[in-house]
Amino acid sequence: MIISNIEVLQVSYISNIVMDSEGHTHPGKEHEAVKKILKITTDNGIVGFSFMDSIHRGIIEEIVKPVLIGENPLYRERIWQKLRPRQRLNRHFNDRTLAAVDEALWDIGGKIAGMPVFQMLGAYRDRIPAYGSIMVGDDFPGGLDTPEAYAKYSIELVARGYKAIKLHTWMPPIIPNPDPKMDVAACAAVREAVGPEIKLMLDPYHDYSRQQALYLGRELEKLDFYWIEEPMNESSMSSYKWLTENLDLTVIGPETADGKNYTRAEWIVSSASDVSRAGDIDVGGITPLIKTVHLCESFNIGVELHGNTLGNLHVLGAMGIPGEYYERGLHHPFLNYEKPMPWFNKIYDEMDNEGFVTLPKTPGMGWDINHDYIAEYSVE
Amino acid sequence: MIISNIEVLQVSYISNIVMDSEGHTHPGKEHEAVKKILKITTDNGIVGFSFMDSIHRGIIEEIVKPVLIGENPLYRERIWQKLRPRQRLNRHFNDRTLAAVDEALWDIGGKIAGMPVFQMLGAYRDRIPAYGSIMVGDDFPGGLDTPEAYAKYSIELVARGYKAIKLHTWMPPIIPNPDPKMDVAACAAVREAVGPEIKLMLDPYHDYSRQQALYLGRELEKLDFYWIEEPMNESSMSSYKWLTENLDLTVIGPETADGKNYTRAEWIVSSASDVSRAGDIDVGGITPLIKTVHLCESFNIGVELHGNTLGNLHVLGAMGIPGEYYERGLHHPFLNYEKPMPWFNKIYDEMDNEGFVTLPKTPGMGWDINHDYIAEYSVE
Repeated sequence: MIISNIEVLQVSYISNIVMDSEGHTHPGKEHEAVKKILKITTDNGIVGFSFMDSIHRGIIEEIVKPVLIGENPLYRERIWQKLRPRQRLNRHFNDRTLAAVDEALWDIGGKIAGMPVFQMLGAYRDRIPAYGSIMVGDDFPGGLDTPEAYAKYSIELVARGYKAIKLHTWMPPIIPNPDPKMDVAACAAVREAVGPEIKLMLDPYHDYSRQQALYLGRELEKLDFYWIEEPMNESSMSSYKWLTENLDLTVIGPETADGKNYTRAEWIVSSASDVSRAGDIDVGGITPLIKTVHLCESFNIGVELHGNTLGNLHVLGAMGIPGEYYERGLHHPFLNYEKPMPWFNKIYDEMDNEGFVTLPKTPGMGWDINHDYIAEYSVE
Repeated sequence: MIISNIEVLQVSYISNIVMDSEGHTHPGKEHEAVKKILKITTDNGIVGFSFMDSIHRGIIEEIVKPVLIGENPLYRERIWQKLRPRQRLNRHFNDRTLAAVDEALWDIGGKIAGMPVFQMLGAYRDRIPAYGSIMVGDDFPGGLDTPEAYAKYSIELVARGYKAIKLHTWMPPIIPNPDPKMDVAACAAVREAVGPEIKLMLDPYHDYSRQQALYLGRELEKLDFYWIEEPMNESSMSSYKWLTENLDLTVIGPETADGKNYTRAEWIVSSASDVSRAGDIDVGGITPLIKTVHLCESFNIGVELHGNTLGNLHVLGAMGIPGEYYERGLHHPFLNYEKPMPWFNKIYDEMDNEGFVTLPKTPGMGWDINHDYIAEYSVE
């Protein structure tokens, strides 16, 4: 069995989400958008899919395709190790594109094996507690424009079943000068609204000074927050070592820092965070994410997974250390997260009223794909 | 699907291998022996096997069985994480018994998936270069009694196809006072016999002083040896850090040190060896061995696998960093390694004339079991 084709499908759809100049998403006016879908086909007819954002089509055609065509799709480690060094000078070959390739291959592998990916890996659990991850703050009346707006929305999330909530607060371009005092006001309002039993986390502006981050962390300690993530530029690992030493509050990271599991190893030996962090989209797929998990486990260090991806769900289902939570969202009062994107028949992370997401039982990744939509709305 | 039974089969056979008081094996008089085989059965009729030495039958019955019965055999991570803490006070629950359970479960998983274990993990390669691993020295005329005997036998191993050879030299109880000069004499004779192109490694007496180990390492550098392993008590990690700092020769370890991937992590951050070392039998199965590999990879540290097990072969087939070699043996002039044990129809590590072992292509672990023999020679 060999890989016979790899292609990036493009489908048009109506989106009500817009991206700001920092790359954060917000609710917006309905507009036409294009979704990229990676499809890998084998000569025996088994097809694998993945649905990462930021897939780079030119990289797939020019850099990835020559490696994949004719290769056995079960040789994921060989393929991944061949592709990884090609990222060095091909700067468009981001980890999300690498992850897309890896997860389409896991989809094929699971379909051949007749089992979901987390069971191929060796399963640990069937359902994962989720936290509700609230979008970055904005200035929409009735949106996420005030501490009170966060508080009100948090009550809705608790009513939905969440036992844990993470805030993203205000940052540029919404406000030009982020202010830890505004973060604290939002966090205090949410704590007041949801009471002491709900776990709360904060992911604030990512470029505070050490002093601002320390102030913020100390205030979150008073509010009994569960963790803080990425309040400073992660390129300065020393800043995180300093912050972690100075706070009782759990500091988790790195998230957006380049370097996959290698970078996580350096943060661990530098004690630059209390809990590590990685997502399939950050490190280049399930293959390197499980490496990161095994690295962390070897140091008795937890790792919280970044992002609401199905790849993360499978790894959470296969890992024997925390990862305590699945990050479900991003949520916003104006958006209906429970409604599937049109290329899916249903969302892959349905949550019960107790706040748990159950892992898929279908072979492979377990996407429930609306192939009719993809065929009908295909665009070049 | 659930696990319905786990049992330790015992079969009698005629062995010509004996164990000395230190636990090392040698050729010996033919005698009746008993082999333990672990068998896990599922309610849908799929059966997994493993063939570790040192399986503890009482531990399987009393400690393992209650965890396994009724559990889904694909939940390897959950099972492993439940069993591991039970080793703490159950001192008979050794890592080989844990490994036996884990690998019988991988056998079941691969059979369900219809693919060999290394492809479930995500394959990297189909064949592995092997080194010929020579037994510990002895005092048998024509055996491994002199440097010249090692030299003569090494020429045979090279003729067999090996491009690399590892010596185990003389140690108690064969000689009461091990002497690095004797190791050097054997190593020099082998180097002289096989020429400069064959890679050579040494695994000498395991309780030398720092000074003896340093002397030995320096001499091996002159003989262009590829690595040295475990010349001192591994409980003293500081001794290995000291030796590694002082030698150019590659020091690999730890091998017999307890603590699985956790211990390997500590050796890495302490720079206590140049290359890590672990075998499925040392760390408790394929599940923790792949964790160890991922740990090492995250630090760009190689890991050479210990022992001639099929579990190691599968992990070697799935790992993208060295592990450069499969350890094939132990070899001795009096023994025919190519002849299968009677519970197998053929050996699992046949080697071609170029010195490569090809991974099994059959689903699961890929044992080729002589079930008739097991049925006929079963003993209580």
